[in-house]
Amino acid sequence: MSVDALPAMDVAARTRRLRARLAGEGLEALLVTRLPNVTYLTGFTGSAALLLVGPEEIVFVTDGRYAEQSADQLSAAGVDARIEIEVTQSAQRDAVSAAARGYGRLGLEAHGVTWAQQRAFDGEWFPDAELVPTEHLVEDLRRVKEPGEVARIRAACAIGDDALAAVLPGLADKPTERELALRLELEMRSRGASRTSFDTIVASGPNGAKPHARPSNRAIEPGEPVVLDFGCVVDGYCSDMTRTVSLGDPGPDARRVYEVVRAAQQAGRDAVRAGVDCAEVDRASRAVIDDAGWGDAFVHGTGHGVGLEIHEAPRVAATARDTLADGYVVTVEPGVYLPGVGGVRIEDTVVVTDDGADVLTSFPKEFLL
Amino acid sequence: MSVDALPAMDVAARTRRLRARLAGEGLEALLVTRLPNVTYLTGFTGSAALLLVGPEEIVFVTDGRYAEQSADQLSAAGVDARIEIEVTQSAQRDAVSAAARGYGRLGLEAHGVTWAQQRAFDGEWFPDAELVPTEHLVEDLRRVKEPGEVARIRAACAIGDDALAAVLPGLADKPTERELALRLELEMRSRGASRTSFDTIVASGPNGAKPHARPSNRAIEPGEPVVLDFGCVVDGYCSDMTRTVSLGDPGPDARRVYEVVRAAQQAGRDAVRAGVDCAEVDRASRAVIDDAGWGDAFVHGTGHGVGLEIHEAPRVAATARDTLADGYVVTVEPGVYLPGVGGVRIEDTVVVTDDGADVLTSFPKEFLL
Repeated sequence: MSVDALPAMDVAARTRRLRARLAGEGLEALLVTRLPNVTYLTGFTGSAALLLVGPEEIVFVTDGRYAEQSADQLSAAGVDARIEIEVTQSAQRDAVSAAARGYGRLGLEAHGVTWAQQRAFDGEWFPDAELVPTEHLVEDLRRVKEPGEVARIRAACAIGDDALAAVLPGLADKPTERELALRLELEMRSRGASRTSFDTIVASGPNGAKPHARPSNRAIEPGEPVVLDFGCVVDGYCSDMTRTVSLGDPGPDARRVYEVVRAAQQAGRDAVRAGVDCAEVDRASRAVIDDAGWGDAFVHGTGHGVGLEIHEAPRVAATARDTLADGYVVTVEPGVYLPGVGGVRIEDTVVVTDDGADVLTSFPKEFLL
Repeated sequence: MSVDALPAMDVAARTRRLRARLAGEGLEALLVTRLPNVTYLTGFTGSAALLLVGPEEIVFVTDGRYAEQSADQLSAAGVDARIEIEVTQSAQRDAVSAAARGYGRLGLEAHGVTWAQQRAFDGEWFPDAELVPTEHLVEDLRRVKEPGEVARIRAACAIGDDALAAVLPGLADKPTERELALRLELEMRSRGASRTSFDTIVASGPNGAKPHARPSNRAIEPGEPVVLDFGCVVDGYCSDMTRTVSLGDPGPDARRVYEVVRAAQQAGRDAVRAGVDCAEVDRASRAVIDDAGWGDAFVHGTGHGVGLEIHEAPRVAATARDTLADGYVVTVEPGVYLPGVGGVRIEDTVVVTDDGADVLTSFPKEFLL
């Protein structure tokens, strides 16, 4: 899938689905304040906007920096919204307040407004409305990816695969972690990614014991395992993958850890299927690591949803209560971390299907280069 | 200032200053939930942590991914905190809840907790405490930069200067906006920046009319003004600068806009001094553009604070109520945007002093290359 030939998405249909949910919750309207949710519903990608979704009308409020961009993007997405450009906070308040007049029960995104905002909304913005905390109304819609969304995540994952293939031969030059991370990012960008989806992790030798290590000026020596966890963004959608490799044999202990994590990752992937509980996927991966005696060294959940955000619903963890459905996109990424020694993590991003998992990150899982 | 020889910072002293503020507010403790504030107070740079600052004790809670990193970073910063590693949300709740037992008036960051969090804190986490919304307690401390912080911002700005000098000759090759943005980022990274401080803006020709345009696949032609707004991060601290240039003369109209914006930027810079109101700096810049008849085309504030975050206190805008003080670091970045035609913005990052402004972004302001 070329970055320049992505299929269209029916963005306007998302508001229709949201309205059905609002009606189910007994809400007349929802004030959307979380930016990824605004992007999902409108196509707008700027850094500041509010969206009021009522039963008939959509009102989109942003500031002067985004007058032209918001008009372009909402039009391109086919979203029929009234756009209000208001430079000051108080003018934005007045615009939204006027648009919300008459709404009795108005939803606020409980995870998307700060306590300070909620207090201002309650007292000044919407004095006559009953403000109702809502939980993940838009995020829940975002769990099931449309074909156009999967195409974008797939394109981002393919870029990640190709970028990794391009940089690994360079391990022979003993780059520092930072140098290798930079090359990886450059390869992703030059292939059409708009940016990285999170700060690239390149963690070699003992640094591999930190699951979220930041690349250092440490030179990567032959015979040292190196964990590469990285992703990029294509038209707003993220990829996420991890591979652990070693240029030269780091010895039997490291190989053993690798084989256990690889088996755990495969077990997790094999457990993915529509209708399966997320906790069950976590259990499948974790059992392999537990059986090998490293249960305490697997210090994070097995995965998470991926889409407009690098971390979104559902969580794939022991304490998760969600069930996988057709069209979810999640990661499967067990790891073992041994402080002072090193670590191994292997991660794929997969689309959940009724039959199992469509794996989007296809770079091989060979430990020894 | 080399990236590898940055002066030490007295991170532990920041908690002492915070405690003095808490006492002034009649608070026994503050739960710090905004990550940049956690970073400021502890040196920790991971993606998840809570910090409870009491009168005697500091309790730092994070998850298993950051066990080793948090121990390393807090120790390196000289911060004497009790570190609790808790994998699950409920275990984190129990740890913080136990640590807060006995605190009567507990501050929450009103701008740093979501409504959902506040509701959980109120009911489940801290059933016996009076939860008090606080406004920018840590952010206010962060306004005045210590010498070590200025050194980091200065280093990041110097990298930006050098990177811009390195890429501008490449305009002769008619790169696309995306290509030029990528080269700029690569130059910043290869000079030691850990990442960009925000998504780089390269906006040529008519795209310059969008203050926050995203780089496109449009090739930049000679004789077209191009706005470059970019920055990078050095040891957690951001830089921010904008230059508008044209390879070849775009004609008298564009030159006239440039001269007006340049004069407006100089007027804003000249107005910066400890004791001056932020609104006065905005007025100084805006008056020049108003006088030229383009007041309506200057659609954003004149500037903002820069530090651990790319946008932080104070705002430099018409509606701002803050007064500049010695050690503040702010941008001065007026612009004129003419839809369908193009735009010009010029931005410096400066340190406020008792005498005026110490300008950290020293790249020349020549329009015609």
